Amino acid sequence: MEFPSKLIENAVAELSKLPGIGRKTALRLALHLLKAESDSTASLAEALAKMRFEITYCHTCHNIADTEECSICANKLRDHAMVCVVSDIRDVIAIENTSQYQGVYHVLGGVISPIEGIGPSDLQIDSLLKRIPESEIKEVILAISPTMEGDTTAFYLTRKLREFPDVHISTIARGIPVGGELEYADEITLGRSIVERQRQAR
Amino acid sequence: MEFPSKLIENAVAELSKLPGIGRKTALRLALHLLKAESDSTASLAEALAKMRFEITYCHTCHNIADTEECSICANKLRDHAMVCVVSDIRDVIAIENTSQYQGVYHVLGGVISPIEGIGPSDLQIDSLLKRIPESEIKEVILAISPTMEGDTTAFYLTRKLREFPDVHISTIARGIPVGGELEYADEITLGRSIVERQRQAR
Repeated sequence: MEFPSKLIENAVAELSKLPGIGRKTALRLALHLLKAESDSTASLAEALAKMRFEITYCHTCHNIADTEECSICANKLRDHAMVCVVSDIRDVIAIENTSQYQGVYHVLGGVISPIEGIGPSDLQIDSLLKRIPESEIKEVILAISPTMEGDTTAFYLTRKLREFPDVHISTIARGIPVGGELEYADEITLGRSIVERQRQAR
Repeated sequence: MEFPSKLIENAVAELSKLPGIGRKTALRLALHLLKAESDSTASLAEALAKMRFEITYCHTCHNIADTEECSICANKLRDHAMVCVVSDIRDVIAIENTSQYQGVYHVLGGVISPIEGIGPSDLQIDSLLKRIPESEIKEVILAISPTMEGDTTAFYLTRKLREFPDVHISTIARGIPVGGELEYADEITLGRSIVERQRQAR
């Protein structure tokens, strides 16, 4: 695709570096910005640059924050003895949206992946192990996606957490999603959901 | 969806104003930028702002350009007596990519749409009518999408072009797309493709 202008070519090249955005979509976005008020492009560019350069990470849980301590860690009403370990900031947002969790978080910043060259030392694992005795944590919930890499990370963490015999370790429940059809569930999930069946109150 | 940071909330809000980008996609883009090198965000923001504020439009054909005259109008090898009228810059890029057209363009900047409040005076129609005698144009090709608004615009232009009885007016051929299946074509297209059948050389 050839463009009549170097400026638009640069903009398209930059936009199409974003995940899931190809050159056609990038061109559509660029032309949309050209047609819209110039203020909207200015505020988009400013918001992106501001986010990238001014954002900080919480010193305790490594969640994104505007200050040194994120709003979750700063909240005195939350249960600071229960920590939910997630790989990514997106997982914090997802769990927060359920309104079902009252504890605090610990964001690893990824999962162990030898293929991508990510080892335990690249993740926030040491800071978790340091945090447990310091913050008198009683339960660690491993909320890591059940992929190959996620399971490796969970296994590694479980072994490391043996250091603290008094701390409970749990993982989020696996099973059939609410509203999911049994016949479309994969065999491993369905198998686990039968083995780990829950007794109903009666 | 609640975000742990105002900065990321602003970035997501700005990104999700773009067409086809919802809040979940916007968050994915924002987190991608946060993980990537800070240079990539800076160059994206700069490319967008530069494009929006420095881009100019060709004085002759209203295509986007880096200078006062676009590269197509400046090209002496092209046929300046043949002008292809399109609604949008995207159409110029699409036609250029076919490498089948050697004339010049005229970008209207939209189509007549009473619902959106776009009348003939909002489009580059007067400049087209002025350009025809000035540039000694011999053929006007109407390459406007065959939608309700596009057809209205083409009809309006055809009437206005009666002023110049020596100028040929043509429209791009309608018919079954190359590789298209007859049974899936809509009735109007199929009907027109039979009425306007082309005699084969033999």
